[in-house]
Amino acid sequence: MPSTLIHNIRSLVTNDPALGRGPLGLVEDAAVVIEGEHIAWVGPGDRAPQADAAHDARGRAVLPGFVDSHSHLVFGGDRTQEFNARMSGRAYEAGGIRTTVAATRAASDEELAANLARYLREALQQGTTTFETKSGYGLTVEDEARAVRLASEQTSEVTYLGAHIVSPDYADDPAGYVDLVTGEMLRACAPYARWIDVFCEKGAFDGDQARAVLTAGRAEGLIPRVHANQLSHGPGVQLAVELDAASADHCTHLTDADVDALAAGNTVATLLPGAEFSTRAAWPDARRLLDAGVTVALSTDCNPGSSFTSSMPFCVALAVRDMGMTPDEAVWSATAGGARALRRTDIGRVTPGARADLALLDAPSHVHLAYRPGVPLVRAVWRNGVLAV
Amino acid sequence: MPSTLIHNIRSLVTNDPALGRGPLGLVEDAAVVIEGEHIAWVGPGDRAPQADAAHDARGRAVLPGFVDSHSHLVFGGDRTQEFNARMSGRAYEAGGIRTTVAATRAASDEELAANLARYLREALQQGTTTFETKSGYGLTVEDEARAVRLASEQTSEVTYLGAHIVSPDYADDPAGYVDLVTGEMLRACAPYARWIDVFCEKGAFDGDQARAVLTAGRAEGLIPRVHANQLSHGPGVQLAVELDAASADHCTHLTDADVDALAAGNTVATLLPGAEFSTRAAWPDARRLLDAGVTVALSTDCNPGSSFTSSMPFCVALAVRDMGMTPDEAVWSATAGGARALRRTDIGRVTPGARADLALLDAPSHVHLAYRPGVPLVRAVWRNGVLAV
Ligand SMILES: [Zn+2]
Ligand SMILES: [Zn+2]
Repeated sequence: MPSTLIHNIRSLVTNDPALGRGPLGLVEDAAVVIEGEHIAWVGPGDRAPQADAAHDARGRAVLPGFVDSHSHLVFGGDRTQEFNARMSGRAYEAGGIRTTVAATRAASDEELAANLARYLREALQQGTTTFETKSGYGLTVEDEARAVRLASEQTSEVTYLGAHIVSPDYADDPAGYVDLVTGEMLRACAPYARWIDVFCEKGAFDGDQARAVLTAGRAEGLIPRVHANQLSHGPGVQLAVELDAASADHCTHLTDADVDALAAGNTVATLLPGAEFSTRAAWPDARRLLDAGVTVALSTDCNPGSSFTSSMPFCVALAVRDMGMTPDEAVWSATAGGARALRRTDIGRVTPGARADLALLDAPSHVHLAYRPGVPLVRAVWRNGVLAV
Repeated sequence: MPSTLIHNIRSLVTNDPALGRGPLGLVEDAAVVIEGEHIAWVGPGDRAPQADAAHDARGRAVLPGFVDSHSHLVFGGDRTQEFNARMSGRAYEAGGIRTTVAATRAASDEELAANLARYLREALQQGTTTFETKSGYGLTVEDEARAVRLASEQTSEVTYLGAHIVSPDYADDPAGYVDLVTGEMLRACAPYARWIDVFCEKGAFDGDQARAVLTAGRAEGLIPRVHANQLSHGPGVQLAVELDAASADHCTHLTDADVDALAAGNTVATLLPGAEFSTRAAWPDARRLLDAGVTVALSTDCNPGSSFTSSMPFCVALAVRDMGMTPDEAVWSATAGGARALRRTDIGRVTPGARADLALLDAPSHVHLAYRPGVPLVRAVWRNGVLAV
């Protein structure tokens, strides 16, 4: 297998405390050897072994590729006018998710696949090497199955979210829609998905409905994750912990009991600051979760309605500015935290045996992701050992 | 002169209400003809004249290049550790501006020039075609003159800010420092600068000192601009209006009398949301200023201490999210507003005769600068008629 030495790394985030300083396992003046698709060696530059090729990091920082564990990128149309009206204080007959459902149903397979590829590429250029994405804008058996199938052609982290909202076609029969989501639609989608998700919120699905969706998904071999406590207090977080979901996503409105449940359980709290940014909502309190010992991930929630950013660096900057995270914590959550939220041990770290997914910054330190907000700092990206950007 | 037709523009911001819809003068399905360094023609694509060359905008948006009217980019060193400590809640013996003064004095001309070129290039890649920058990290006659001289080699918008803080060398004699700033230092700097600026704030210069600095500068042919009312209420804004300064910058803490003075005067209020972002400070209230009829500009304040972003798109997104601006207002302020703050009529608009400074977005509308925060959307930049990015 061909090997590549990345040398002259001023500061390397390994996320392995055994390899370096602090929880980020920081190694200064470091080198990394890639062999095929994996990391073969990590350590001080002056002890680096030889390799077939070399890449000079020129005194800059390297970190694991970002793991974006929450996005909604199988969609048609956009919602520019709705966003513009909301931010301009103008009344607007907003169709919300329904607008995107109609546009997604109307789009061809080719259009949806091209749109997804475009945003995955955009994210890759910003350092994201692993991308989860969801269905949820089809809401018929055929359209949901199409969404997870198209997603599965571009990422291995696919989530079935038939339970995004009650389909407009079932406005008078939400119970009938839950039956569909847990029955025929689930069976059509399960072969293409790894995860099952539900939007547990007033106006979407209540605790009993969410439980029915997640347990049905589990019975088909899917692992639960939950849209929980985004807009108000609710049963989502505690249900997620009870059902051993990989992640409870949003976690904006939490009681002490919710925080205690997360701390005692095995479920990651995934915070999505892009959503609060683009809806002018109050921020989730990352500090409270971290101080309670909860594992926190950061993700974009990239979608055309409430958070149309694909930028993990932007989410890191917001987490530091507005959610009480330190730069170190935010970078950990955007890499190792995302890996935990996807129950992956092969990504989110730069250690021998891990996937060779790396981002090189045009900056001497990972701190610059928060110190230099909005600036496109990602200069090179390796994914599966291949220089992709 | 060679001409270029940019065609297939889905949405063009001209900032000329006579050319299109609303204050942004929006033209849909537009074309622009560049001739030499200037705009020769603007209008609907189906009436575009012929040109020597053509550039297909592929259904995307074009707007005037951003005008960043406030930055501090002649500096040495950086302040990563100070930022990291502040955002991590750790005590840190912060030298603040003094840290950068020491590093700047220690740097060679070549280092300072290369550093400035690097950030100007970074800004250009994000759509900024006009860049103001300041001295203020030298604070000796020689170091301030060196700063404005080096700046003048890379931009025509140079500001002499000897009155950034009282030089540590004059800690016991602030009056002596004001004498230096208004005397020998001013005479050494004036040939290289267009503007004179003063940091009018508790801990820096009071109203009387600021008045002395600005009037001395005016006598040497420099035009005043003022760092005013950033950290607390103070006399800066009203002094700026009284002295007909081009701009009062920051404007975070304003009384009704300050707002009234700005509305009645000829001074632009330049808001710098990057500073509030990176210091976790309260936001300036753009809505209040706009509703009072004040002309508002947006700028980065790019500097290694309090706002190390070079990204005008990021400032637009913050202005919309946190300062009550609409996307249209924020885009106007980042282009035409910046031009007003620099008293320029040849930039900040896409109209016949204006400089051919243009940014092409990878998006169908300028609204996407706020709708897609953090995403590097600038795909091409023309400066002085030349495709520079
Ligand atoms: Zn979501
Ligand atoms: Zn400043």
